[in-house]
Amino acid sequence: MAQEIERKYLLKDGSWRDAVTESRRMTQGYLTTLSGGARASVRVRVSGDAAFLNIKSMTLGVSRDEFEYPIPVADAQHMLDHLCSGAVIDKWRHYVRFGGLLWEIDEFLGANAGLVVAEVELSSEDQAITLPDWAGAEVSDDPRYYNVSLVEHPYAQWKDV
Amino acid sequence: MAQEIERKYLLKDGSWRDAVTESRRMTQGYLTTLSGGARASVRVRVSGDAAFLNIKSMTLGVSRDEFEYPIPVADAQHMLDHLCSGAVIDKWRHYVRFGGLLWEIDEFLGANAGLVVAEVELSSEDQAITLPDWAGAEVSDDPRYYNVSLVEHPYAQWKDV
Repeated sequence: MAQEIERKYLLKDGSWRDAVTESRRMTQGYLTTLSGGARASVRVRVSGDAAFLNIKSMTLGVSRDEFEYPIPVADAQHMLDHLCSGAVIDKWRHYVRFGGLLWEIDEFLGANAGLVVAEVELSSEDQAITLPDWAGAEVSDDPRYYNVSLVEHPYAQWKDV
Repeated sequence: MAQEIERKYLLKDGSWRDAVTESRRMTQGYLTTLSGGARASVRVRVSGDAAFLNIKSMTLGVSRDEFEYPIPVADAQHMLDHLCSGAVIDKWRHYVRFGGLLWEIDEFLGANAGLVVAEVELSSEDQAITLPDWAGAEVSDDPRYYNVSLVEHPYAQWKDV
């Protein structure tokens, strides 16, 4: 088991784009639902010619238990098409190195178009980090930004709330 | 992806025990819940020194889509202890060969003690089968007998319904 310790930020502007070193298109969905009281999320992700099952504890905040297993792309595609709940999330993940850390910037498409979120993985909860100029408000503790939330309450509907 | 085509029966009596060729203790739980409207169940099972993640469509009846992946036992045990919803199912699975088919007879323990169910896997929905004398009423279409149901509504509570 890995422990995922992650901080999540909104973006102030588009200046991060100049620093991108790699971008990957990702499609993902969830076999679990938010409303059923499950203690973990089960994610299916296809990224290029690879696919993964990912299981994470649903605890809110910076640290979560995490397991990840590679699976055949055809299996994952069937799950996305037939077994996942809610909408499928479609996004570009951009990679930016800053201050000795790898930042992952998710630029959402489809029902979540307009939403851009930067994540950085840490080795401990109290690790000091230097924030890039383009990092805005921290949203690590806001459940709306969980990808598992975005399949049920996509960004396009947030205006209605 | 495999397609699971399975018929499930209650047991008339204990005469099947004489025909058992192998028995395995199994502990399993679910990362999905029944109430959340998920379209698939995600099961974690530990059986001896092996463990598996299993994903099945939640369609009712004889045929279901099924995926299964081996995972480390330590991962599965952590999921059973911390991430599964509801109770963990503990059972003996007994194997009996009859009429050219392999029957799996689940004898439940703990909160489901007293429940014994026989399952037989078929290669098509209309495959003719010869029922053993000990096979009782068919319950393939009764959702109460789904293992994913038994974690939330264990057999010990059925009397109350």
